[in-house]
Amino acid sequence: MTHPTPAAGRIHLDNGSRAPWHPLARQAFLQALDDGWADPRRLHTEGRRAAALVDGAREAVAQVLGARTEEVRFTPSHTAALHTAVAHVARARRRHGSDVVVSAVERAAVLHAAEHAAAPGGRRVSVDVDSLGRVDAEAFAGALRHEGVAMAALQHANGEVGTLQPVDAVHEAALAAGVPLLVDAGASLGHTAVGPAWDVLAADPADWGGPAGVGISAVRHRTRTVATGPEGPEPWAPGGVSVPAVFAAAVALQAVVEDRVDADRRRRELVEHIRDRVSQIRDVEVVGDPVERLPHVVTFSFLYVDGEALVTELDRAGFAVGSGSACTASTLEPSHVLAAMGVLTHGNVRIALDRSTAREDVDRFLQVLPGAVDRVRDMLGVQGL
Amino acid sequence: MTHPTPAAGRIHLDNGSRAPWHPLARQAFLQALDDGWADPRRLHTEGRRAAALVDGAREAVAQVLGARTEEVRFTPSHTAALHTAVAHVARARRRHGSDVVVSAVERAAVLHAAEHAAAPGGRRVSVDVDSLGRVDAEAFAGALRHEGVAMAALQHANGEVGTLQPVDAVHEAALAAGVPLLVDAGASLGHTAVGPAWDVLAADPADWGGPAGVGISAVRHRTRTVATGPEGPEPWAPGGVSVPAVFAAAVALQAVVEDRVDADRRRRELVEHIRDRVSQIRDVEVVGDPVERLPHVVTFSFLYVDGEALVTELDRAGFAVGSGSACTASTLEPSHVLAAMGVLTHGNVRIALDRSTAREDVDRFLQVLPGAVDRVRDMLGVQGL
Repeated sequence: MTHPTPAAGRIHLDNGSRAPWHPLARQAFLQALDDGWADPRRLHTEGRRAAALVDGAREAVAQVLGARTEEVRFTPSHTAALHTAVAHVARARRRHGSDVVVSAVERAAVLHAAEHAAAPGGRRVSVDVDSLGRVDAEAFAGALRHEGVAMAALQHANGEVGTLQPVDAVHEAALAAGVPLLVDAGASLGHTAVGPAWDVLAADPADWGGPAGVGISAVRHRTRTVATGPEGPEPWAPGGVSVPAVFAAAVALQAVVEDRVDADRRRRELVEHIRDRVSQIRDVEVVGDPVERLPHVVTFSFLYVDGEALVTELDRAGFAVGSGSACTASTLEPSHVLAAMGVLTHGNVRIALDRSTAREDVDRFLQVLPGAVDRVRDMLGVQGL
Repeated sequence: MTHPTPAAGRIHLDNGSRAPWHPLARQAFLQALDDGWADPRRLHTEGRRAAALVDGAREAVAQVLGARTEEVRFTPSHTAALHTAVAHVARARRRHGSDVVVSAVERAAVLHAAEHAAAPGGRRVSVDVDSLGRVDAEAFAGALRHEGVAMAALQHANGEVGTLQPVDAVHEAALAAGVPLLVDAGASLGHTAVGPAWDVLAADPADWGGPAGVGISAVRHRTRTVATGPEGPEPWAPGGVSVPAVFAAAVALQAVVEDRVDADRRRRELVEHIRDRVSQIRDVEVVGDPVERLPHVVTFSFLYVDGEALVTELDRAGFAVGSGSACTASTLEPSHVLAAMGVLTHGNVRIALDRSTAREDVDRFLQVLPGAVDRVRDMLGVQGL
């Protein structure tokens, strides 16, 4: 197998949903690899030791979530946690109906799972957002109260544009209506406070510097679920998960939560700095709520620019950024989030700062960005428009 | 989180489906963690580097399997690979029927998936095995040829008792009948030669010293599949898999295949030695085919002994062994494999040797075993029977 070598001097500003491992995650993984490689379902010493590591990881995650240990489960990925949560909760509520209420800016995994769980007979009911990407709590509550709703899903914050959602008000309405609410905290947990306003919660360790290939699902004791897949002892993770990976995910979560207040303030200032400087570039739209938002995410779109070309141009200059409008291996569609907000869906750049991102990194990026935009516009022959 | 310390001087003889990591797997994992932590679906340098590692891993696995690179997919676990293979292949064949033909000694994951895929309207059709645990190729072929069969599944070898199955003959019959055959190579790949007689193949990296939390699925180009879960770009692994883990799985596979002839001979001799010595203990039944078998697995059952008690007694003496009749966290049922073979289902011990298991380890175990059996029989008050 060929093995590419890392490029020196790169600045990585695309840390949403896949950040470099936290140093303590690496250390925890290696420790658990020595002590917890065995199958935690076995009866011997090695198996029991592995099981103890999984239990410790569940306990640590539960503590951060304000949940009971037995309410926390590990899944094969954040996407898998969302798929399974929607499927299992909707199935358990089948006699009440099959409709699944979602915001228009949920992750694709939630939209797909809602479509799948509602069929046949039910519908995915999508609640619109405003130009900042936020649902109206009243409108969402109204949709919840309709006849035939099995469940609802609302993200804690939107990972593409950073806008926080009114989960407290929506959860209150959901409780009153007796409809279980899935809160996708995949972009929030580890970055901002996630309160107790959820019945089912999904979170993404790879987003806070834990390993990929692990997701987290928490289901309140009172919330019923019915497995929809083949029978088996682990309906949330058939075949089990990697013990070192779940242990590292939990250790990384503890570490980032401990450091959250400082990291939050520092990254929030950097994002304000970016918003301020970028908005001075010609024909740009900085999107998402400027105040009620994730501390580390900022998104903007340029007129007359192709998103994929801009990502590539910035990559050439040494900067890795995300884009809601660039084609990836997995999709050729422009961002449904930007479309639902009614903002520019092309020429988009998404920045997600790591805890380690320095002011100098951001300043170097801001120096390079206007020239990169000009070059892409030049290529498209729109310079001087 | 508390962190147990490893016990010194332990001998681990329970290496089936979860072996300690191969040293090269650890090295590969750490290398890929530095170079491949990013999301392989992203367009920037870091994303493309991660994608290159996944491609390299697929290529390496394909080479070992004699498959095309694009036929190989990574899944969240071996169990997930089996679940998804059965579901997707059966769904694609729905207009031909819904029955799923299996051997009676397939893994629980296959039995459950077959039950699930066949419903509603179809049946799981189970083909009996002889006292060595082997299906009759003719009987399996007969079941295949019935009207209404969607697909069939036959393990390459049984991981509990080691017996090889007649996959060549069964695959020939399946091809003639136009019925796709899933071959579960979860206990074989990395330990014994797995030929080209399969349409879909599942394998288990944790079984050959790769990471847990990864499975392998290979689907021949000619074999149709239809995803049964929510829409998404990765129906075999929603949300993707850990790049370092799949890279480590592939490197470990290359390493063990390279060393297979030597490891095979050495472990085969150790198993013969164990079979010979254990059969001299009073009231014991050594099960599985003595010749046409996996090189590293041996299973035996003691009359008047409880499996869980014996595992615990051996654990106390420093030996980790498996058991098809011990209660685990996941099941309180005795082994369906032993029951299907018509042999003793209680007092069972399963040994799966690691490549690193030494003759001295085995001799120490053989010295301790008779006394442990006596002590457990004493506790049950059957000494002297």
